[in-house]
Amino acid sequence: MARNRDEVLKVLENWGDSVTNKILSNEEPVLEIPSRTLSNTIWDSKKKMLVLGPEKLKRRFLDLKESKRFMQTMLMLRLIVQAIREGVYPTIRDLYYNGKHTMEFKADIINKVIRENTWDEQSESNAVIEDIEVATGMLREEMGLSADVKGKVVGPIIVRSKGFEIDATKLGDTALSLPPNPDDLDIVKVEANYVLVIEKDAIFQRLNREGFWNKESCLLITAKGMPDRATRRFVRRLNEEYGLPIYILTDGDPYGWYIYSVYKSGSIKLSYESDRLATPEAKFVGVTATDIRTYKISDEYVIKATDRDLKRAQELIRYPWFQSDHWKKEIELFLRTKKKVEIEALSTHGLRFLHDYLTDKIHGGKFID
Amino acid sequence: MARNRDEVLKVLENWGDSVTNKILSNEEPVLEIPSRTLSNTIWDSKKKMLVLGPEKLKRRFLDLKESKRFMQTMLMLRLIVQAIREGVYPTIRDLYYNGKHTMEFKADIINKVIRENTWDEQSESNAVIEDIEVATGMLREEMGLSADVKGKVVGPIIVRSKGFEIDATKLGDTALSLPPNPDDLDIVKVEANYVLVIEKDAIFQRLNREGFWNKESCLLITAKGMPDRATRRFVRRLNEEYGLPIYILTDGDPYGWYIYSVYKSGSIKLSYESDRLATPEAKFVGVTATDIRTYKISDEYVIKATDRDLKRAQELIRYPWFQSDHWKKEIELFLRTKKKVEIEALSTHGLRFLHDYLTDKIHGGKFID
Repeated sequence: MARNRDEVLKVLENWGDSVTNKILSNEEPVLEIPSRTLSNTIWDSKKKMLVLGPEKLKRRFLDLKESKRFMQTMLMLRLIVQAIREGVYPTIRDLYYNGKHTMEFKADIINKVIRENTWDEQSESNAVIEDIEVATGMLREEMGLSADVKGKVVGPIIVRSKGFEIDATKLGDTALSLPPNPDDLDIVKVEANYVLVIEKDAIFQRLNREGFWNKESCLLITAKGMPDRATRRFVRRLNEEYGLPIYILTDGDPYGWYIYSVYKSGSIKLSYESDRLATPEAKFVGVTATDIRTYKISDEYVIKATDRDLKRAQELIRYPWFQSDHWKKEIELFLRTKKKVEIEALSTHGLRFLHDYLTDKIHGGKFID
Repeated sequence: MARNRDEVLKVLENWGDSVTNKILSNEEPVLEIPSRTLSNTIWDSKKKMLVLGPEKLKRRFLDLKESKRFMQTMLMLRLIVQAIREGVYPTIRDLYYNGKHTMEFKADIINKVIRENTWDEQSESNAVIEDIEVATGMLREEMGLSADVKGKVVGPIIVRSKGFEIDATKLGDTALSLPPNPDDLDIVKVEANYVLVIEKDAIFQRLNREGFWNKESCLLITAKGMPDRATRRFVRRLNEEYGLPIYILTDGDPYGWYIYSVYKSGSIKLSYESDRLATPEAKFVGVTATDIRTYKISDEYVIKATDRDLKRAQELIRYPWFQSDHWKKEIELFLRTKKKVEIEALSTHGLRFLHDYLTDKIHGGKFID
């Protein structure tokens, strides 16, 4: 499944070679890069995810408007290839600083020294990293770039990283923090019935300490709020490669519902990676608007929705991936009642009620697709 | 070292008993609680940390102004004791919801029903948790409360949690996420020369993958920015119980320096726990104002300080724990030059330069105390 560093290096080198070969045969080098514009971001109703459309842009070296970006792309490609060859694992910010410098050019005709920075802002160097990702079809994680890691896992899974086997049933009250590149993680064995992805870290800790995964034989995963790329990729792998059902537990508010949709359908900003990061089969077991009645959460435990919540809900209801009758009914009810609920509000029925709620939703089929 | 759950329960039950015994002998129950006011937060120059002063407040049951808070404290004590007895690990938000309810009292004299909420906001229930912590001398973590966990560790340490031994040299590219209560973690063996605490998660990931801890035989720890209580407690234990030197790596800006001071001296808000959470021996190996010259970081890699940075630096320079000549010189230089530097800016000297910088600072004694 996972490409090793040599294979990754080969893909990048080949891409570089295609450019130098053009130059050596006196042709203009042109980069073909799938376009990451909003207009080229489409909802694939069959795949049930946000993906890039067919538009490609051609970045020409001999076009004055494009030559700078062309050269930025080549500079970044060089930095990444060099990092892989030297066995270092820079962050995207390291690459920004490492590549930033001023080029001087003495223009004799006008008798002036012209100075040009390779890039001024990190947004520029980040953009060419994304270009390289879409052009080569590889995730930055596979190229060995480091980033903050938010994801943690516990439960019946054995993984192998750099030759070390780790059994996530033998961690006690601790948890396994995912590696920056989850494709590098060998999944040696997984004997779980399902995966429960939990928005809130503290709830993940509770359920871990209270032995929920042991009782249910499931994996617990959290990415503390909005998931990072690596956690999304790991969840996708568990579903795609091992067929595990994925359940997402969030607060009962538009932000929680949006987090669910990012796991399930991808995000607009990262639509170019949905094919690797999104899990269309993920189900929602967080709190819904109707749950307020179903689980008898009285008004004193409910929070009044803010204008921002309502605005966000109005956005959600327009997204293609919230067009099912079930979701439309829930979001419309929320917009009418203007009530949101935190997952901890279930504790009004006792500190163990969260367990009952979860098994009721999961085994009773009371989730939303 | 660590108290087990039975011992913790005993302390809480005894505190409760002292109240009921008063009532049973027809005396007014009075709680004695160290005062957590700013005026009772003092700098202990001998211990080198922020601590609570000697002021105590007496919370009387029969004082109309205090009886509500008295009852809130007893309610929370009951919830925590119950959670321990039932083997659940609630978050402070769970306790807020679990304890929130409306009490009705029929006042015959005025022929009215009076309603009173146990508490309305989480700030009220949180405050009594802090009261219970200072009154009993126990951390909420010891009482089994769950919270977000930010801390991760890798390197030559073997720990035991719930009977499972985990060797943090055998994690490959993953890391061990700390447990919510680091006092519950048995440290079976630690063979490190020192502990490097890293502000930025992505830098922690880099150094882990690049084998820094292996080469240096050190522990790497991160808490992603401002540390949580559990990470601070774990760092403190490594220093106190195993005598390990602690080095803190942050960006070169007032926020990074403040993070260092929180590890070292505690924070005003949590001064009542400094004795358990602060590590006065921690040394600073992050970027300083003079480093810009020492490590030849040219102007294009330097960031202009914002007004907020300058304001924060002016605050730092007034804190007792930044009164050393070394720190005063650094902060004054920062206020003059108004230049800040990210740790990644070192990558301008190559992607491996961070390693050289760290060994230079640590082994060359170029840290700040």
